[in-house]
Amino acid sequence: MDKLEMRHTLLAAKARKKLTWEEIGKSIGMSPVWVASACYGMNSATPDVAKKICKVLEAEPEVATALEAFPTKAWDEAIPQDPLIYRLYEVVGVYGDTLKDVIQEKFGDGIMSAIDFSMEVDKIEDPKGDRVLLTLNGKFLPYKAW
Amino acid sequence: MDKLEMRHTLLAAKARKKLTWEEIGKSIGMSPVWVASACYGMNSATPDVAKKICKVLEAEPEVATALEAFPTKAWDEAIPQDPLIYRLYEVVGVYGDTLKDVIQEKFGDGIMSAIDFSMEVDKIEDPKGDRVLLTLNGKFLPYKAW
Amino acid sequence: MDKLEMRHTLLAAKARKKLTWEEIGKSIGMSPVWVASACYGMNSATPDVAKKICKVLEAEPEVATALEAFPTKAWDEAIPQDPLIYRLYEVVGVYGDTLKDVIQEKFGDGIMSAIDFSMEVDKIEDPKGDRVLLTLNGKFLPYKAW
Amino acid sequence: MDKLEMRHTLLAAKARKKLTWEEIGKSIGMSPVWVASACYGMNSATPDVAKKICKVLEAEPEVATALEAFPTKAWDEAIPQDPLIYRLYEVVGVYGDTLKDVIQEKFGDGIMSAIDFSMEVDKIEDPKGDRVLLTLNGKFLPYKAW
Amino acid sequence: MDKLEMRHTLLAAKARKKLTWEEIGKSIGMSPVWVASACYGMNSATPDVAKKICKVLEAEPEVATALEAFPTKAWDEAIPQDPLIYRLYEVVGVYGDTLKDVIQEKFGDGIMSAIDFSMEVDKIEDPKGDRVLLTLNGKFLPYKAW
Amino acid sequence: MDKLEMRHTLLAAKARKKLTWEEIGKSIGMSPVWVASACYGMNSATPDVAKKICKVLEAEPEVATALEAFPTKAWDEAIPQDPLIYRLYEVVGVYGDTLKDVIQEKFGDGIMSAIDFSMEVDKIEDPKGDRVLLTLNGKFLPYKAW
Amino acid sequence: MDKLEMRHTLLAAKARKKLTWEEIGKSIGMSPVWVASACYGMNSATPDVAKKICKVLEAEPEVATALEAFPTKAWDEAIPQDPLIYRLYEVVGVYGDTLKDVIQEKFGDGIMSAIDFSMEVDKIEDPKGDRVLLTLNGKFLPYKAW
Amino acid sequence: MDKLEMRHTLLAAKARKKLTWEEIGKSIGMSPVWVASACYGMNSATPDVAKKICKVLEAEPEVATALEAFPTKAWDEAIPQDPLIYRLYEVVGVYGDTLKDVIQEKFGDGIMSAIDFSMEVDKIEDPKGDRVLLTLNGKFLPYKAW
Amino acid sequence: MDKLEMRHTLLAAKARKKLTWEEIGKSIGMSPVWVASACYGMNSATPDVAKKICKVLEAEPEVATALEAFPTKAWDEAIPQDPLIYRLYEVVGVYGDTLKDVIQEKFGDGIMSAIDFSMEVDKIEDPKGDRVLLTLNGKFLPYKAW
Amino acid sequence: MDKLEMRHTLLAAKARKKLTWEEIGKSIGMSPVWVASACYGMNSATPDVAKKICKVLEAEPEVATALEAFPTKAWDEAIPQDPLIYRLYEVVGVYGDTLKDVIQEKFGDGIMSAIDFSMEVDKIEDPKGDRVLLTLNGKFLPYKAW
Repeated sequence: MDKLEMRHTLLAAKARKKLTWEEIGKSIGMSPVWVASACYGMNSATPDVAKKICKVLEAEPEVATALEAFPTKAWDEAIPQDPLIYRLYEVVGVYGDTLKDVIQEKFGDGIMSAIDFSMEVDKIEDPKGDRVLLTLNGKFLPYKAW
Repeated sequence: MDKLEMRHTLLAAKARKKLTWEEIGKSIGMSPVWVASACYGMNSATPDVAKKICKVLEAEPEVATALEAFPTKAWDEAIPQDPLIYRLYEVVGVYGDTLKDVIQEKFGDGIMSAIDFSMEVDKIEDPKGDRVLLTLNGKFLPYKAW
Repeated sequence: MDKLEMRHTLLAAKARKKLTWEEIGKSIGMSPVWVASACYGMNSATPDVAKKICKVLEAEPEVATALEAFPTKAWDEAIPQDPLIYRLYEVVGVYGDTLKDVIQEKFGDGIMSAIDFSMEVDKIEDPKGDRVLLTLNGKFLPYKAW
Repeated sequence: MDKLEMRHTLLAAKARKKLTWEEIGKSIGMSPVWVASACYGMNSATPDVAKKICKVLEAEPEVATALEAFPTKAWDEAIPQDPLIYRLYEVVGVYGDTLKDVIQEKFGDGIMSAIDFSMEVDKIEDPKGDRVLLTLNGKFLPYKAW
Repeated sequence: MDKLEMRHTLLAAKARKKLTWEEIGKSIGMSPVWVASACYGMNSATPDVAKKICKVLEAEPEVATALEAFPTKAWDEAIPQDPLIYRLYEVVGVYGDTLKDVIQEKFGDGIMSAIDFSMEVDKIEDPKGDRVLLTLNGKFLPYKAW
Repeated sequence: MDKLEMRHTLLAAKARKKLTWEEIGKSIGMSPVWVASACYGMNSATPDVAKKICKVLEAEPEVATALEAFPTKAWDEAIPQDPLIYRLYEVVGVYGDTLKDVIQEKFGDGIMSAIDFSMEVDKIEDPKGDRVLLTLNGKFLPYKAW
Repeated sequence: MDKLEMRHTLLAAKARKKLTWEEIGKSIGMSPVWVASACYGMNSATPDVAKKICKVLEAEPEVATALEAFPTKAWDEAIPQDPLIYRLYEVVGVYGDTLKDVIQEKFGDGIMSAIDFSMEVDKIEDPKGDRVLLTLNGKFLPYKAW
Repeated sequence: MDKLEMRHTLLAAKARKKLTWEEIGKSIGMSPVWVASACYGMNSATPDVAKKICKVLEAEPEVATALEAFPTKAWDEAIPQDPLIYRLYEVVGVYGDTLKDVIQEKFGDGIMSAIDFSMEVDKIEDPKGDRVLLTLNGKFLPYKAW
Repeated sequence: MDKLEMRHTLLAAKARKKLTWEEIGKSIGMSPVWVASACYGMNSATPDVAKKICKVLEAEPEVATALEAFPTKAWDEAIPQDPLIYRLYEVVGVYGDTLKDVIQEKFGDGIMSAIDFSMEVDKIEDPKGDRVLLTLNGKFLPYKAW
Repeated sequence: MDKLEMRHTLLAAKARKKLTWEEIGKSIGMSPVWVASACYGMNSATPDVAKKICKVLEAEPEVATALEAFPTKAWDEAIPQDPLIYRLYEVVGVYGDTLKDVIQEKFGDGIMSAIDFSMEVDKIEDPKGDRVLLTLNGKFLPYKAW
């Protein structure tokens, strides 16, 4: 079973059981964003976590094997088209130089890792319109001279 | 004076006066990321704020006029190459579908605005390596049927 | 049932029943353009509206579920090729800077939302050749400093 | 004088004289969007109109010659990056098939001309947020068999 | 039956019956280039003509329905690769500016329509090598100020 | 003097002397389209013809040398953007396969040369709107087995 | 049977019968490179030659029909990736301007035809490493003024 | 002096002295194609050869230094546009798979080097039209398992 | 059996038998990176080695035939997306000019072959985080004048 | 002084003083590849190292400031064209999946860092042709679940 089939299986099970990523995350002790990314095939799970995901979603053991596999990460469109995802791309385009300058002023020459990294989505309720709070947390890696 | 010349003038002044975005932001009462984005030419300032920026950086009045102008936002590379900015692009590519699903599960069908939007960079000190905390805060805009 | 299958099912039903978007829109109390976009899989319907669409087009309940799903919006060609769609792309290319200037002169720095948005197609009869009147109506979103 | 120099000259004059496209359009009897497009170098003016524009903006006769020249229309980015212009591109991408279907249902096989064409921008004031009303008006051209 | 299946059906029938586009065109009173384009799925036929094409090629009624459908025109390669088609693309690239200047000198600012348009292929026999005569005939559409 | 400078010089002279391509072509005994293409730098002239062009347009001898040089042909946009030129590109895209089939049915396997090639632009006056007649004339080159 | 199926059939037969292009070419009196190109679907064969190829490779008559068909030539990657083919592309990139200059110095303004064209591959044995000798032979086509 | 300036200097000198690549090559004992490629900046010359080229073309010593520099090879268009160079690209596209198969059948798995490589242009006079004979000679490099 | 099917077969067998590339390489006397590349279909094996691979992985004889076939090498994305592979691409982008200069300073004008080439992956254990040691070993090929 | 000007200054000084990267590296106690990358503007130096580089190459203090600046890394061609650099790109394309599999088998799910990273170029003398030994050394970064 490859990652694509695994993803279809898990998303179908989640819909059938009417569970949210929030609930699945809570019941297995992981963050909802990470659980979603693993079910979408963009992260690998440890055997232990894979088993838990399969238990919550009542999936076959071969789904757990697929969850443990190390993914080859890829995406369809170099420039995303879906409006929600495009807005994030636009933020990177518009504010990329700004963020580079502010981060490197604070940390020195280096990058924010996208590997030693986590993410969180929160909802700020507001009568003028709720707001999405997206938090990225990555280790700073300094360039080293050699 | 166009935005490009304005940017060169302001970055040179900032270097000459050895100020940080943090300090400039504080002294004019705006966030450091926003101040940087305005000086990079990616946001327009109100006349009042433009004047304050010019005062802190000892710039000519025509720089203030340039800060007030509404920018045409553009970036050089559809797929960014600088490693710090690429990592952000990679996050959007790898986690785009995941974020869409988690956000829409929480908010319904719609997007996180990149216009009614703010951003913040924080440093989490950690003996195993400091971490960058990047917070995006955007209004949720629901699609409406008509 | 995914959006693609839903679309094929609904377009086939519409052809079989010889209904126009105008008629379907009228019978369910929505605009014809919106109804078409939902059947093409580019917008999600509320449960209530989804049921009505399925009733008019005599479709199975799983089609209603597909109509309710939040779509991942994508299109085939970055530069459209079909002549009708290309002409719209050409308008954006030729008049993009012009529209930006005229809109921002009237509203300030910001954008016209494509989310809090509606559209209408009308026919102006004219002996020298009928004319298409295409109306776009989007909320103005101002950039905010922070 | 080429179209680019003409554009810089006219936009600078407009800023200096603090005129809006609305006001310029009114004073010469043309639509504000069309006047802007001609000054941006995307349409040619008749000698008479070119002279009027130059009179309002106090420009030299060679600017009038440049306004009369037939432009070679081009734009920088196949996929626009400025957020205001991108939103229009997104509308074409997301709703292109829908518009094609709705228009051709009303008019038969053919296209909406982008040449025998006009456009208008209006403001709808609304306490919940003003709205942009963008109207495109193009002749319908039917395909003919031969 | 979609346009692709229709095309396979009609081309196979044409090969089986050993008919040329010339002959099919003559027998139904249309130009050979137009008939070919309709059978390739790039133009729609009136019910009457669709029926005639099906009669000549002994095709089922559903093929006629497919011939009447309004096509979504698309092509595989932005820059064509087949040598015969590439040569035409090369002509547009090499002589595009020249043609624009010569046509607009004769007609004013505007375009040659590709919609209100017809085309013809003729053979000029020549002992030094036969020549292809390709004639494009399109309505001139002037830009109008508004 | 390179081809670009030559082009600017010749187009300026032509405007100054208020000559059309038609008139220049007639006075030197060549076709107007070819003369335009040579002045645009897309074809080389024989010494004799180069001298004649320079005489008509009162240009310096070094312009004649530039006219004689063999051009490196190139164009800016793989997919043209100017509406007049795009319409020609669209014709190649929409009708490419059709033309290939009709030409090869008449001539056998091979191509229409874009080198041993000429072109003509004519105006057909018509009360319902004048028409552009564009004629391409290229030697047929058969593929040979070896 | 289309060209792709024909190609699979012929390459499989060639492998099964352990024949080389050299041997097939010799037995039917054609060059090995041409025979390979025809079996790969990049050239059409005369009925006579098609029959001979099918005889040598013991293929069905419908394969002969496919060999006679005029191919639509296309290739997968605008910039080839296979190292052997990339090296040829690199030669065109690195030496393109050089070859243009040397050829046009010898022949005048024009091109080397890729249609009235043949090619040959030879092996030069050499103790320091064998060498590939690739010979391209194309008719020179002069541009003609008109 | 960089390669670009060197190229302009050498091509201007060659034109002024009315020398051909053939003549320059002969007088310094190198092939005309190689000499052209070195003067175009696509190959480096040994100090001895660089001096000879400068002597023949009466160039300054700094030109010799530029000829000795190791070039960074690059070309403008991934897909060439000049018709002469495009035809060579087309040959690689159309016959790439064929050549790979024929070469590897003769030599085993490996490539023809574009580094340990030479090239030659010859003219075959023919009353039906002269022919260009282009010969590529590259060392065969076998892949090695390790 | 083509290379793709061969790859699926061999990777499945490797997983079933729980073997590492290290172990397979050792048992057949080849390097683990090379064995992996051959099983991925990116190198051809000699009959002898192919048989050994099939023996270790208990694969059918037709898999051995597929291992011996000369591959057409290709990859999916011109700019890789998987983070591990992208980092290697980034190294080539960031350090390409540097490496060219350092290598050519040491070796003269020429390249490092990617054909007469081998590669090795080693692990350097380190309490602060293990390190990957990637060694590329390629023959230097000097450009030769001719 | 920006990185580009700095690079020109330092490369010119290095040529004038006839120093190699090897010698410069040795005299300041850093690796030759790293020194080259810093002088090419692809890495930042500490104030101390920047001063040493300027001393060896007799450069002005403002060059030292430029060496200390944090670079925005970018490269010209997504797919490199210079043959030496392309060969490295080809290695990533051909062996990318192989390396991913071999590295992750040894280290688990994660990447080799291109930031906490160093590189070395060595020469292996060999009578059959010298070999380039390129060593990449990067910290392994494991993905972490969160």
